[in-house]
Amino acid sequence: MRGIGDDASVVRARPFCVTSVDAMVEGVHFRLSHVSATPAQVGRRALAGALSDLAAMGADPGEAYLGLGLPPGLGEAQGLELVRGAKTLAVQAGTTIVGGDVVAAPVLILWLTVVGWADSEDQLVGRDGAVAGDLVGVTGRLGGAGAALAVTEGRVARSPATEALLARVSDSRPRLAEGRALALAGAHAMIDLSDGIATDAAHIGRSSGVHLEVDLPALPLQEGVEQVCAELGVPAWTLAATAGEDYELCFCVAPGKREDVQNAVAAVSDAGVTWVGQVREGAPGVSLLDSRGEHLRREGFEHRW
Amino acid sequence: MRGIGDDASVVRARPFCVTSVDAMVEGVHFRLSHVSATPAQVGRRALAGALSDLAAMGADPGEAYLGLGLPPGLGEAQGLELVRGAKTLAVQAGTTIVGGDVVAAPVLILWLTVVGWADSEDQLVGRDGAVAGDLVGVTGRLGGAGAALAVTEGRVARSPATEALLARVSDSRPRLAEGRALALAGAHAMIDLSDGIATDAAHIGRSSGVHLEVDLPALPLQEGVEQVCAELGVPAWTLAATAGEDYELCFCVAPGKREDVQNAVAAVSDAGVTWVGQVREGAPGVSLLDSRGEHLRREGFEHRW
Repeated sequence: MRGIGDDASVVRARPFCVTSVDAMVEGVHFRLSHVSATPAQVGRRALAGALSDLAAMGADPGEAYLGLGLPPGLGEAQGLELVRGAKTLAVQAGTTIVGGDVVAAPVLILWLTVVGWADSEDQLVGRDGAVAGDLVGVTGRLGGAGAALAVTEGRVARSPATEALLARVSDSRPRLAEGRALALAGAHAMIDLSDGIATDAAHIGRSSGVHLEVDLPALPLQEGVEQVCAELGVPAWTLAATAGEDYELCFCVAPGKREDVQNAVAAVSDAGVTWVGQVREGAPGVSLLDSRGEHLRREGFEHRW
Repeated sequence: MRGIGDDASVVRARPFCVTSVDAMVEGVHFRLSHVSATPAQVGRRALAGALSDLAAMGADPGEAYLGLGLPPGLGEAQGLELVRGAKTLAVQAGTTIVGGDVVAAPVLILWLTVVGWADSEDQLVGRDGAVAGDLVGVTGRLGGAGAALAVTEGRVARSPATEALLARVSDSRPRLAEGRALALAGAHAMIDLSDGIATDAAHIGRSSGVHLEVDLPALPLQEGVEQVCAELGVPAWTLAATAGEDYELCFCVAPGKREDVQNAVAAVSDAGVTWVGQVREGAPGVSLLDSRGEHLRREGFEHRW
């Protein structure tokens, strides 16, 4: 095995190679400052976002490659802190940063390539296998990342409750073990909630050629999110449905697998599973149902609200 | 096999996975304009640079992932032209662009991940295997990229000869077949000449713990380079030694393999091999010898001249 310092890294392969690439640009995807995101948090978040794509396939994590575009103003200490943030998560997530690239750039840019592995194709899940009749489930609790952003951007007053929320969110991890468990338990389709379930469930609907109905009041909320939504003057499910970056998984399974899936996830973590909707025939996309059971929107979502 | 449109791509693996990541930033690595680089040339060059790292390992090309950071001013037509430039080279080089990412950015940024494969570790070559007594060789002809840059930057007058030079350089390809042939023929160490042999031979020297002597007048010059150097008022070998981006390979082999190596490269292309130096015991790094046999510099090169 060869790593940093040669022209390329060399690793021993397993039969199927799963690869995802991802980038974060300062001013577009994050703002670097002591109130919004420290360099360590930015490094951690970039790797978490990339690994979350592997989790959504059910792949075992393998190697990560971290590219950095460093602006003139960024000190060496900040650059090292950023790499340290990514490395801390890498250890927690069972992946190894084996290579990378550093170039000069006008703003801070991180690009991540993550490689996962599987021994058979059956072990992997795409977005395209959902069928009418399936249940729609999610892991963990949603809305935390969006609520944390509202706090750090000053749209919501800070309090002991919001500080606790920020701490929970900054420790969040991609659901790699849960993704593998869901794939092995027979999930038909899976995606990570990088943009919010309103958008991401629509991706499953369009890829699978089915219609997903998501029951908004059923969405499991991260502790503290309801209060932030109340202060923002929006329905409690808003951030869970639309804010994204929670690194949770959304998946479709046959109704008969309900118990198996719950047990499979419980066997690997305390993330838990919540059932939030169902799959039916119809226009490929998603419907969001509010507390009165009315359809808020029928077509596929392309953008955040 | 899954590609664009899912969370990650899935490909069937071979036993050893060789990965390289690379980035190019507008204003740092290139300037986009009709006189210096068209979008298609930028896309091609970014992929060529990344694939050249696989060539230097002796890996078979596999998949490529193209990430784009697009600035507000870049039109869709230019973005598509850029991808087309990369795709044209991908076909020529036997690789497939199977995924990517597009984000907003303040300037044009391209980041490439290229994955190559090998069936055994013996098939691959690093920078660290050169031993005293080895011969130092290069593929192809050098200095073309540096001379082309001098032309497009207006440091040298345009003429039919410089136009022919630009055409040759814009069609250059990473030496993938040659790299595999050299690895199989027993090269001890190999690197691609991305920074120029003055710098890149020093990388081999330091990684291998040996001293490389490179005979500057022996460097094979791309047609038209000598004239450009004369106009610039520098020795004819200057661009070949220091300008880089020629995508040629530099390698070290046992003297007894001289004929085998020449034949192996001749079997796959008309690039040809030129012997430009030797490896000896001594301070890890490189010496550059001028026409009088004097050592111009002894230590390892870290930067371009």
